[in-house]
Amino acid sequence: MTVNEKISALRELMKRDGIDLFYVTTGDYHCSEYVSDYFKVRDYLSGFTGSNGDLIVTMEEAILWTDGRYFIQAEEELAGSEIQLYKMGEPGVPKVSEFIKKSAMEVIGISQEKLDSESLDNKTLDAKNYKISFDGRVVSAEFLWNLRKNLSSISTTSNGNASENSSKFKVQIDSNSRIADELWEGDSEEKRPSQIFNPIYEYDIKYCGEDRNSKLKRVRESLPNVHGNYAHVVASLDDINWLLNIRGEDIHCNPVAFSFLILDEENIYLFANLGETNKDKSGNNIRERLESDGVQILPYEKFYDFLSEKSEAEYDKIFLDMKNINAATYDCIKDKKKIFNMPNPEILMKAVKNVTEQKNSIEAHVKDGVAITKLLYWLKKICKVSDDKKFILDENGEIVTEISVSDKLEELRWKCSNYTGPSFDTISGSGEHSAIIHYSADEKTNIPLVLDDFLLLDMGGQYFEGTTDITRTVFVSSIGENREKSSIDNDRKRFYTFVLRGHLNLAYAKFLKGCSGVALDILARKPLWDLGLDFKHGTGHGVGHFLNVHESPNGFRYRILQGTGQNPELQPGMITSDEPGIYFGKEAKEQYGIRIENLILCEERETNPYGTFYGFRNLTLVPYEREAIDISLMTEQEIGYLNDYHKKVLETIGPKLEDDERAWLEEVCREFVR
Amino acid sequence: MTVNEKISALRELMKRDGIDLFYVTTGDYHCSEYVSDYFKVRDYLSGFTGSNGDLIVTMEEAILWTDGRYFIQAEEELAGSEIQLYKMGEPGVPKVSEFIKKSAMEVIGISQEKLDSESLDNKTLDAKNYKISFDGRVVSAEFLWNLRKNLSSISTTSNGNASENSSKFKVQIDSNSRIADELWEGDSEEKRPSQIFNPIYEYDIKYCGEDRNSKLKRVRESLPNVHGNYAHVVASLDDINWLLNIRGEDIHCNPVAFSFLILDEENIYLFANLGETNKDKSGNNIRERLESDGVQILPYEKFYDFLSEKSEAEYDKIFLDMKNINAATYDCIKDKKKIFNMPNPEILMKAVKNVTEQKNSIEAHVKDGVAITKLLYWLKKICKVSDDKKFILDENGEIVTEISVSDKLEELRWKCSNYTGPSFDTISGSGEHSAIIHYSADEKTNIPLVLDDFLLLDMGGQYFEGTTDITRTVFVSSIGENREKSSIDNDRKRFYTFVLRGHLNLAYAKFLKGCSGVALDILARKPLWDLGLDFKHGTGHGVGHFLNVHESPNGFRYRILQGTGQNPELQPGMITSDEPGIYFGKEAKEQYGIRIENLILCEERETNPYGTFYGFRNLTLVPYEREAIDISLMTEQEIGYLNDYHKKVLETIGPKLEDDERAWLEEVCREFVR
Repeated sequence: MTVNEKISALRELMKRDGIDLFYVTTGDYHCSEYVSDYFKVRDYLSGFTGSNGDLIVTMEEAILWTDGRYFIQAEEELAGSEIQLYKMGEPGVPKVSEFIKKSAMEVIGISQEKLDSESLDNKTLDAKNYKISFDGRVVSAEFLWNLRKNLSSISTTSNGNASENSSKFKVQIDSNSRIADELWEGDSEEKRPSQIFNPIYEYDIKYCGEDRNSKLKRVRESLPNVHGNYAHVVASLDDINWLLNIRGEDIHCNPVAFSFLILDEENIYLFANLGETNKDKSGNNIRERLESDGVQILPYEKFYDFLSEKSEAEYDKIFLDMKNINAATYDCIKDKKKIFNMPNPEILMKAVKNVTEQKNSIEAHVKDGVAITKLLYWLKKICKVSDDKKFILDENGEIVTEISVSDKLEELRWKCSNYTGPSFDTISGSGEHSAIIHYSADEKTNIPLVLDDFLLLDMGGQYFEGTTDITRTVFVSSIGENREKSSIDNDRKRFYTFVLRGHLNLAYAKFLKGCSGVALDILARKPLWDLGLDFKHGTGHGVGHFLNVHESPNGFRYRILQGTGQNPELQPGMITSDEPGIYFGKEAKEQYGIRIENLILCEERETNPYGTFYGFRNLTLVPYEREAIDISLMTEQEIGYLNDYHKKVLETIGPKLEDDERAWLEEVCREFVR
Repeated sequence: MTVNEKISALRELMKRDGIDLFYVTTGDYHCSEYVSDYFKVRDYLSGFTGSNGDLIVTMEEAILWTDGRYFIQAEEELAGSEIQLYKMGEPGVPKVSEFIKKSAMEVIGISQEKLDSESLDNKTLDAKNYKISFDGRVVSAEFLWNLRKNLSSISTTSNGNASENSSKFKVQIDSNSRIADELWEGDSEEKRPSQIFNPIYEYDIKYCGEDRNSKLKRVRESLPNVHGNYAHVVASLDDINWLLNIRGEDIHCNPVAFSFLILDEENIYLFANLGETNKDKSGNNIRERLESDGVQILPYEKFYDFLSEKSEAEYDKIFLDMKNINAATYDCIKDKKKIFNMPNPEILMKAVKNVTEQKNSIEAHVKDGVAITKLLYWLKKICKVSDDKKFILDENGEIVTEISVSDKLEELRWKCSNYTGPSFDTISGSGEHSAIIHYSADEKTNIPLVLDDFLLLDMGGQYFEGTTDITRTVFVSSIGENREKSSIDNDRKRFYTFVLRGHLNLAYAKFLKGCSGVALDILARKPLWDLGLDFKHGTGHGVGHFLNVHESPNGFRYRILQGTGQNPELQPGMITSDEPGIYFGKEAKEQYGIRIENLILCEERETNPYGTFYGFRNLTLVPYEREAIDISLMTEQEIGYLNDYHKKVLETIGPKLEDDERAWLEEVCREFVR
């Protein structure tokens, strides 16, 4: 079926069930950012494959929301369908919640003015029904709660609950619809994959540095004191996997196992599909090991019924994180007064890497740095420009394409010990594709490297020692690099240098304890903001330790996020990405993009009468694109940062290379002098 | 009485009333930052005269808390008394609330460990009483609420109310103590001033740009929709004075009138001591004018009884700002469920200056800039070094002192039209005194200007057109300025330049809509942080329009403040100070301080596909200290900012000066070239 045919078919099911508005987002049962194939319902319906998108289908419209990373990709993938693209955060673009409210009000036939200006109690309105449906298992409890709150003003009651009981306004929120499943599972052309449960294994203490009993103790101690029985209910996979020192392979690129967890004063219940004979890679039986630490293992599918019963019969207070638990879980707790919404305490604990994790991360980044430095050497020195100056050819005379670069990277990484695969699908975007923030080359889009243009490589690896994430923007020159004269044009060089300046200023920041990422973000953006430019994504995200490559709560952004725990103070041990960029899309004369990314580890620098100062250690060790750097646009301080970084790269990575590779590295890492 | 005698006398009253801990802060009935003399109870008791300080007296201890601006001053003023200084925000220093809790627990005889580790329900403890007292009219409702919440864990109940009813733990919070008044009013040596109510006058529309009906309408519209009768209760003087376009002279330097306000759906009640024949300066009867706009005027003293009655009989919902209303008001509303705590909507409205206010502010700053440029000219060119090179002498041969400089400033300012007085007591600190962030010279501390050292001048003026606030740090040279060779040493020059760099980088920032002051603060601190230095005060505060010189909610700081409305996005029309500094106190080889401050107005710069960019307009126009600038320590960009600023100063202020003054200004504003 085409996308339009799917939307039509969905509308038929909506009609059958009396649904006015159907909502589907990117989600699994665990509020994961990246989802396994089974859960790609929004991709299936819309054709848009980005990691973040909300689809709303009404009888008249079909709209997809996504963020700045995906604007170009979404435009391309939605082309030819009836789905309109709403660009999140752009002026005049309503939020999903605003759109839903507006749609409901229009159909019900009441204006905002009417709502604001008159008392509704004594009105008799021509009541119409309006039914909003979605699958509550794959949206967050917070979404449901906000939706109910948001729509409560359309009802004459104001108890925070939607107006299902109102006789005048009938907005019904149905969080139990399965029509998208029905459609996909009935589609004979495009078979829906099943939810796969891979073996779970123990994550060794030599990598994680703290045993599960210690973590469980810390989590229990961090919960608020209450009278009576409490339960701490967790659905977020990285929190559970971190807490129990387990790992799995259930989500592509994320080494996590599908599971739910309930922790009460005495018990630890893990809901996971764990066979009796499940052995981990060292031959240990993970079930036995978990049970010997007091973890009671129940089938994954029993979670809702178990929680529903226990919450009614046994628990007085239930701690859960409504951002990180699905609406179905929230709704299976009948007495909502028992719910205490708070960020999972695992989030902050997990973000602050312990000494073992830090040491291991450094090692993972050295391995990754060697692999990527070898990749750059291969690209710059082994591969050659074809005689007709149209292509880059590899050592076998094959044309080098976006995909062949990422394949080469994987080949190099698999030579590293304890590598388990990428931490996300490599972004290898050449020429115009480099302007697509989260481009993913496939057989359809793959192109040979464009000469005299940028190749943007955003690459992450999973090693037992840690998770990496690095971006390098490489200039693919028609005359090769390190010549007297480069073929790079002034604009590309200028913008590369401006992005690099921001990147260096953030990585080398020295700052007082008490700063959140919000206080530092401008260091990365200032060179661009001064020119009236910006990049439409965060400057940095937290990174897990052999876990998800995007991890809350630390990050670099310029807006303060509302809500508890969203703008944490930076603490020694936190690992965050530093990845400013610039992207020139369709509106520009030439389309290309630049991003430079390192992972940086927060460390204490000094404590003096002025306070405690922190700084960052660059974990990522790979040279920048020398050909694209114009030091006349940099301050002395920035040149100092650059030279310091390249010196560290050479010292650490150099000894691990072959002679010819090292000679090249010495060349690209030599000191810049004004 | 000495301070120690006063503390002893207070302890006698505490014993009489069974008080274990007495708390007194800087406060009046309106939660004002600066208070009139009647309310200086904490100053009276402790001898500390800074604008921010909390005093706690127990039977064993007397402790004063203050912030970084006042550490040096407090040390000096408390010397010789038994009062210990607790430096707010320093490592290991408990907060007032923590101290109170700890004291109570100690006396009651229960440890934190016991509290944490055991259920208290079944314990029988040797119960002791503990009574915490203060005057609820001069502390905020928020303080009271937090105290009750904070102490609730010492009781066996957890209803958020203090444990007055608990039979086991008897912590009593008495918010109705008058012992400090009793002590002061019985002191025959140091007579307590009375609370003075000066005439109230209309603040002309040509200055404020929006009539009170329009403001009242906007405030009413901004309140949440409720069913039933609401009241919006306001005690903060600047909010009331802004809202009603009135001004007074009831607080030194703050042109406000003592008043309370209750706004309900139909009525506006103003509680103020306004005589029948009260005429404003244009001869209008302000009472008549207010009444003709529907304002009902009641005596100031009737406020509590009126609110108490109305809140019980008539109002269903009461909007108030617990940060900005006193505890006595909060407590006179019996049914606490009616209270809806929210920031006063006036706060944000007042912060965003309208076009008339902006235009007027620009004018006020030109007048102030002329006066201060004349002051600097006088200091640098008219005053001379004495023959023995020990003093600076004025045109009459008198020794120039800290106070004579501030007197000269006032003389110059009073020549400006519509000047009504300073917006705060001028800080004129020479030599070591420049290291005291909020120094105030009096007859006891006043010194002649120290040669070859800094004179720090922090000066604010109140004009009908607006409020100014500027700091210039002047080098008082033994050989005069603008010579081939300056007598300034390298350290002073270096640190002045680093402070200036931060100051310029913030003032010239270009940034995206969505930034709060937190996102920009590092621009001002980075040059110092890079050196492991810092200044222990905010980088900037909002400024009122012919109102308080410190005005919420905009500001520049690096920590995100908890609570709603505390870190607002910067908006065009907001005026904020930009005042980094560096202070070398007793621990340093040489004691001196540097601060450079301008007021900057947020303006829109451009809207392009990357978003809407804002920037600042420098309202303050006075040259920097040329002798103290070392451009070899500055980036090209920073030198560009500096030259741009001096060019604007010369263009705007130059034409309003006498010839010799202008010639000097041209000299100090000439372009810096590397």
